[in-house]
This record gives sequence, structure tokens and C-alpha cells, in this order.
Amino acid sequence: MKPVFREAPGAILIEPRKVIHMATARQQLLQKLAVKTDSKIVLIVMDGVGGIHTMNSPKTALEIAKTPNLDALATRSALGRANPADVGITPGSGPGHLALFGYDPIVPAHEIGRGVLEACGINFRLNENMVATRGNFCTLGADKKITDRRAGRIPSEEGARICAKLQAAIKEIDGVKIHVLPVKEYRFCTIFEAPGLAPEVLDTDPQKVGLETLPAKAFTDSAAAKKTADIANKFIAKAFETIADEPKANGLVLRGFSVDPGLPSFQDLYKLNPCAIATYPLYRGVASLAGMKVLETGQTIAEEVETLKAVWNEYDFFFFHVKKTDSSGEDGNLDYKVHVIEEFDAALADILKLGPNVIAITGDHCTPYVMKGHSFHPVPLLVCGENCDVDDTKAFSESECLRGSIGTIYSEKLMGLLLANAGKLNKFGS
Amino acid sequence: MKPVFREAPGAILIEPRKVIHMATARQQLLQKLAVKTDSKIVLIVMDGVGGIHTMNSPKTALEIAKTPNLDALATRSALGRANPADVGITPGSGPGHLALFGYDPIVPAHEIGRGVLEACGINFRLNENMVATRGNFCTLGADKKITDRRAGRIPSEEGARICAKLQAAIKEIDGVKIHVLPVKEYRFCTIFEAPGLAPEVLDTDPQKVGLETLPAKAFTDSAAAKKTADIANKFIAKAFETIADEPKANGLVLRGFSVDPGLPSFQDLYKLNPCAIATYPLYRGVASLAGMKVLETGQTIAEEVETLKAVWNEYDFFFFHVKKTDSSGEDGNLDYKVHVIEEFDAALADILKLGPNVIAITGDHCTPYVMKGHSFHPVPLLVCGENCDVDDTKAFSESECLRGSIGTIYSEKLMGLLLANAGKLNKFGS
Repeated sequence: MKPVFREAPGAILIEPRKVIHMATARQQLLQKLAVKTDSKIVLIVMDGVGGIHTMNSPKTALEIAKTPNLDALATRSALGRANPADVGITPGSGPGHLALFGYDPIVPAHEIGRGVLEACGINFRLNENMVATRGNFCTLGADKKITDRRAGRIPSEEGARICAKLQAAIKEIDGVKIHVLPVKEYRFCTIFEAPGLAPEVLDTDPQKVGLETLPAKAFTDSAAAKKTADIANKFIAKAFETIADEPKANGLVLRGFSVDPGLPSFQDLYKLNPCAIATYPLYRGVASLAGMKVLETGQTIAEEVETLKAVWNEYDFFFFHVKKTDSSGEDGNLDYKVHVIEEFDAALADILKLGPNVIAITGDHCTPYVMKGHSFHPVPLLVCGENCDVDDTKAFSESECLRGSIGTIYSEKLMGLLLANAGKLNKFGS
Repeated sequence: MKPVFREAPGAILIEPRKVIHMATARQQLLQKLAVKTDSKIVLIVMDGVGGIHTMNSPKTALEIAKTPNLDALATRSALGRANPADVGITPGSGPGHLALFGYDPIVPAHEIGRGVLEACGINFRLNENMVATRGNFCTLGADKKITDRRAGRIPSEEGARICAKLQAAIKEIDGVKIHVLPVKEYRFCTIFEAPGLAPEVLDTDPQKVGLETLPAKAFTDSAAAKKTADIANKFIAKAFETIADEPKANGLVLRGFSVDPGLPSFQDLYKLNPCAIATYPLYRGVASLAGMKVLETGQTIAEEVETLKAVWNEYDFFFFHVKKTDSSGEDGNLDYKVHVIEEFDAALADILKLGPNVIAITGDHCTPYVMKGHSFHPVPLLVCGENCDVDDTKAFSESECLRGSIGTIYSEKLMGLLLANAGKLNKFGS
């Protein structure tokens, strides 16, 4: 009954399905050196903030935007660039944020599955006996083939109603507890809870209309994965019966079978008491897995700043996420990206008034508007603190960051740099 | 009887207490490519040389000092920056020098204990059966509590006399040979020699006056560590009897139980015949552990240069250490740091007259006078040699080094760069 696990550097299996992280040598060193102090660190992640220069578009959004507050801050800061994952690697927001929080994003054991992210995004606390999946409702034709992969984008209330119906009908299968939790619109979570399950199970989503949903299937010989697949298939069969009469959401697929990666927390690693101010589930999810208190906040930057002000005395580390620099870049919308940067610049003045000991501004990756997507380029980085080593840069821009005194570092190293700037690291050796 | 060892990446335990180093992949590569040639390399370490810029102190000591010789050298050199341990990590001089000598300073197996450093500093050669400790004499009151942790800073002659008295009284305990060696003033070394000892023993120093000295105590379940602690306690008991009548030094504490880390030597790794010119025990100790011949020299930079001249024909690698750039920085004494830099600048002319094929100047870490202590910032680096790639920098300063053609490297990579510049590395692969 022992499950087989892929060998993941940085992780060690100590009992069925429980992966215990060996902190990296760097994390162990930071853990040894970190001390608790009163100083406060604000890490602002402007998602996808960086851009690139081309012959036709020689200026980036950061270079076009009018940003008096960022410029003034840059003048008294150290600038540099952060390489999110590795040279040439274009990261998703998950690895991008893992790196910013100090976890090696390339270690397979640090991979955060879609199911886990979805569960964290709705503040559902996973335990070590749970395998989480992200569910999508879909519409099936009379021939059982998918006609709409998003069930006509049913409203969230509809999704919640159908999840409740499923939960009422299916509470347990062969001793495995079933959780069905609405997320948003056609999206939900199904969580399987019992000892001896494993996440090595393929998605049931064929990724195309005109095809039947796939059976859940273990992709290792692990008995635990096979059991999980079996339970998932029994759940799907019962669920199809239960929602057969629904006009739109009469089918479902399960994706991203995954378990809590068991990341060492900010408290354990850095002796920090951290909180997260972010609007989107993914960022809230990653922050939660890192041990941050994920705060309720509004949808605008100004509302996020209000949240920051309200909790200023309660924490010593603040992860502050700005989403729309990324989405505007993804849309190739230069004007809107410039607008979001200028909107943030106005809000920055209020953040600075709180008097953080260290403030850092960077991104989880670049999203150049000319590429309409994430890119592999180093991300602009600003660090301001008493001993940051002020350089002669005058603006927070890609070209100024290239000249900055921090140089180009890996994003994974940023947390150490912030702790050092905040006076939270003892000397290493004598 | 098998001792338990902490798991040290980069090291492997092959028999009780003997740790054999696995050279890093980089060290193995250098070892494979290194060739013996006549060219000479001078590595000058200006301890703590680097500084930082702040809004109130926009110039560093290097930028204020008048250094015509360094400026002229910079003009025909490649500049860059060296990151001693890792981004954000403030190293002590031990890790800082280990890195400059090409050893990964973060690998726990490379950690050099205080006892070992103290023994090396007095040229005592440790063998694999020895556990070394640093001893401090202290003054005990009638109630056995410490009244002076440094025994009134007794002069070195007093310390030597009491060490001789101890050595005469205690030569062996339960088959373990005891060495008691004077260092300086109230400081001495006690070395325990026998097969089957281990260094996992806590200090006996309570670190405060008004407390009794602590018993030696193993911090693992290792029988070897427990035996070492037992012998140490028996030594302490006999020693207390022996020196009970001393007016000041009637007590002692033992600190930094440690064994020779068994570093691969400069000869083995790089095919070099190296010497060290340094005045302080710590630097002499680390150099000795790396296989360098540690030379007798005077206390001033000019005397160190005389030593260099005297042995010029005997070696092909010269580690030349300048101490006072660090101590002046620790004291926050800008004027004195500037003075030391200018004093070195004058001496540099004489060093250059010797005609080294490669000369490098850097530090083991920064000691910004504004911080009055070591810091985590990259250290200025200069490398001059026939093929160094001369850049357009005009001075050896933090801001010029930021622009230099070497870029920012890890200090651990410097030895490879110096060997390459000296034509001492074959091509890798065909």
C-alpha cells in the first residue's frame, strides 16, 4: 500500500503521501541567521510590471508613465533586476511568486498544483490527508460529449447552488470524505480526504468540445494514486447522476490533483509575522501556503492601501499585490498599463507615509505589452532602506534598473536581501 | 560507538570523526584544468574595504581617498564586484576568506571552528585525532562565580606561564593526550588528542560575569561527543585545582570545540605554491587550512611589503592581507579608513614593481563606516593581467566597480578567474 513518489530534490517522503521539505542550504542559512525585530518590510509586487525595448517600441510602459513618486523613491533607493526562475525561463505567476518569497521555484517539490491553489484561494485549509482538485462544470450533449467547456459561464450563485446539491448527495465514498466547494461561476473544488491517497492522477478534462470527459487515471503504479483515481471516478459517476437534469452544468471535469506542498513558512524561515494584500485567488493562495495571513480587501489599489493602513501595527511583513499591470500587458494595452502604473504611483505616496523601514518594488515576471504575455526577461527591482546603498539612478525603469547597485539577482535571493536591509539577519560566521 | 554527525552537504563521513570533503563540481573542474606555470598571482585582500552610499554620506572611503596608484592601476585593469557569501548575507571574515580562496562558504562542512582557528593562528598543526578548543582564563570569586571574563587581561607572559603550569600538571586523561598552548594574554588553546573523539560539544562559557562556568556537554547523542565532553570536564576539574591559587587566572572556559575541516589544499586544487602575508591570527589560520605557507611578517603594510619582496622568488601565489581597512570601518572612523587606503596606495607602487603577472585587489566583505560593522553588499574587485579585458573605469571605487567588465561575481569564483588570467587553466573540452 506504499505509494510511489517521484523523487523531488528538496523533499523527503516520511510516510504515505506526506512530503516534508528539506529547506535549501540558503533557506537553512537564513533560518539560522534571522532575528525578530520591530522593523517593517513592504514588498510590492506589480504583477508583470517589466517590459522590453524593441526597434519599433523603444520605450516601455514604466518609461512612458509619469511617476513622480516612484522617481523620487528611486533617487534614494538601490535599483537592480530580479530574474524570476532562471535565464530564459518564462514563469507563470505561481513560480514567480514562490521565488519572490524565497522558495526555489525550480524544485519540483515546490510545485503548487491547481487544485491546491484553488482551495487556498477560497481559504480552505488543506490537511495532510487531502487531495485537492479544481473542478469545472461543463455542458454535455445527449451523446455525453462536451458542448461547452464552461457550462455557459453560469453565474457564481448557480455554481454555488449546484455545488450544494452535489455535497448533499455525495458526502463519502468508500470511507473517503468528499468536499465540494464553490469557487466562482463554473469553477469549484473537489477535495478527497482520507489517509492513503495520492495526487498522481491525470486530469479528466479532454481540453476540447466534441469529446467525452476522460476517466481519472493514475499515472504511477502507486496503489494510493490508483485508489484516488478510483474514488474520483466513483465521485464523477454519482455527480453525473445528481446533476443530469441541470440545463447547463450537467457535467464536470476534475483537474490538477494535488496536495499541500508543505512549504516552510515565513514564520519558520524568517521569523516574520507576514500578511498578504492581494485581490486574486492565485496570489492569495501562494501567500497562504507561505504562511501569510491573507487579508480581506477591495478590488482597487486605493482599497488595498486602505487595508494596508488598517493593519499596519499588526504585522512586520506586508506582501502587496498589484494585478492590473499584468492583465494590461497580456492585452497588449500600453495605454492601460501606463494608467495602472500611474495609479499605483499616486497610491505609493500613501504607502510611504506609513514609514516602512524597507520597501521593495518589483514584479513576479515581465509582461511586455509588445509580447502580450509573460516573458523571460529580468524584472525591474527597487529596494529602499537605510543601508540599501543608494546609487545614482533617478527613475524606476528597465534602463535605470540595469545600472543599479543591486545588479541582477535571482528573485529567490530577494527575501534575504530584504531581511538584511531590515537589520533582521545576524552576521554569518566570525 | 559510532558518532552521529550533522548531515553536511559537500562532506561525507567515512570513519568516526573524519570528514572527507567532496570537492564541489567547480573545484573538480578547476583541479582538472589547472596547470603549473611560472606566472605569479598576488591576491590583495583589503579587509572590509567596501562601503555604501547613503543620502547623507554620498561618498565612500575609497571614493574620498587620494589613490593615484590605485587609479592608474584601475585604468589598465578589469573592475567588478565580488559577492562574498550570498545576496543579503553579511559574512564574518572566516566565510569571507574561504570564499576568496575558492571554497563554498555556505557548505556547513567548510565551517571553521574557533578552536581550530586559534590553533592554526599559533601554527599548531592539527591531526585527525584532535579536537581543538579556544580557552579563556577568567577570574572566579570565592563562590565560584566569574568576576572577570578576561582574567584582568593578564599579559601574554603570564598566560604562557600558567599554560606551562597546566601542561606540566595535566598531560593525559583516560588515554586522551592533552595539549595546552598559550595564544595571547588570557587566551589559549586546549587540544584533546585520541581516536574516537568528536567536536559536538557546547561551550563552557556562560558569557556573563556573576555566573559559574558551565560543564562541557555533548549536543548530539554521539558517544564520541559524550566522551569528549567527559574528558573536557575532567580536564577542567584538574585545571581548576592546578590554578586555584592564581590571583587573576584562577578559572577558565573552553569554547569552539572543533576539528580540522580538511579543506582540499591550493596545491591539490590549483597546483599552486602559495604563501600568506597577514598579521592577524584568523587570516593566518584560514590561509594555513588552505595549505598556504604562513610567513612571519611585521605589523605594518610596509613591513608586509618587505616580506613579499623577500620571498618573491619562492612562491607563485601570494595572499596579502591588509587589516586596518576593516577595523577603521568597524569603528566608524572615516578619516582613518581613508588614511589606511592611502597608506596602502603608497605601498602598492612597490608591489607593482615586483611585476606580478596577475594582481587582484578586493575585500572579504564590506565594512561601511556608516554601518560600523560588516555588511551584505558586494565588494569592489580589481583584476589586472595581460588578458583581463581592460574596461573604461578610472578608479578603484564602488561606483566604478559597478560599471566594470567583470560584473558582479561570487567571491567563490575569483580563484578560477585569477588562474585563468594567469594562464594557469587549460581549455575545458574541445
